[in-house]
Amino acid sequence: MYGLIGKMKAVTGQRDTLISILINGVSGMPGCLSYVVAQDPSDADAIWITEVWDNQASHKASLSLPSVKDAISQGRPLIAAFERHIETVPVGGHGIQVVA
Amino acid sequence: MYGLIGKMKAVTGQRDTLISILINGVSGMPGCLSYVVAQDPSDADAIWITEVWDNQASHKASLSLPSVKDAISQGRPLIAAFERHIETVPVGGHGIQVVA
Repeated sequence: MYGLIGKMKAVTGQRDTLISILINGVSGMPGCLSYVVAQDPSDADAIWITEVWDNQASHKASLSLPSVKDAISQGRPLIAAFERHIETVPVGGHGIQVVA
Repeated sequence: MYGLIGKMKAVTGQRDTLISILINGVSGMPGCLSYVVAQDPSDADAIWITEVWDNQASHKASLSLPSVKDAISQGRPLIAAFERHIETVPVGGHGIQVVA
């Protein structure tokens, strides 16, 4: 499996809008086993995204899906910065769920 | 919802054993919506754990479950250090799955 843990900062005041775009944009991505969007309670502009994919190729391919491209183009102006980008190798656990 | 992103270091050579203990210990925890255990590909001793709970109380209660207490007592000697402990507020996404 292939995992990502990322942190981004929204433009001030735009976090909720950006989160909505992210959540709506990522449904039904082939090979996506988990995709969790979270607020950082200690920073009103910060968003954490944790992802699990069956493999890295599926993650790369998702960036070409029309729904994801739309989300990226809508969301990009609301992103102030990317602060963390950590790759992981998920091994197991709970909530790792294949999209039909 | 309540989320955690954590990083721990295993005692050198013990990461796989510690990961197995973690994965086995965390099945069937009430209120746990996602629990992903991952290797860090850039550090042979490091483990990332990302968790989503329905609320913080469920997370706290899980620490009293016999299966979790057993996992903690088995795993503790294999943990060299806790490096990160980040609380989050998950909002949505995919793979957030209620345990029956």
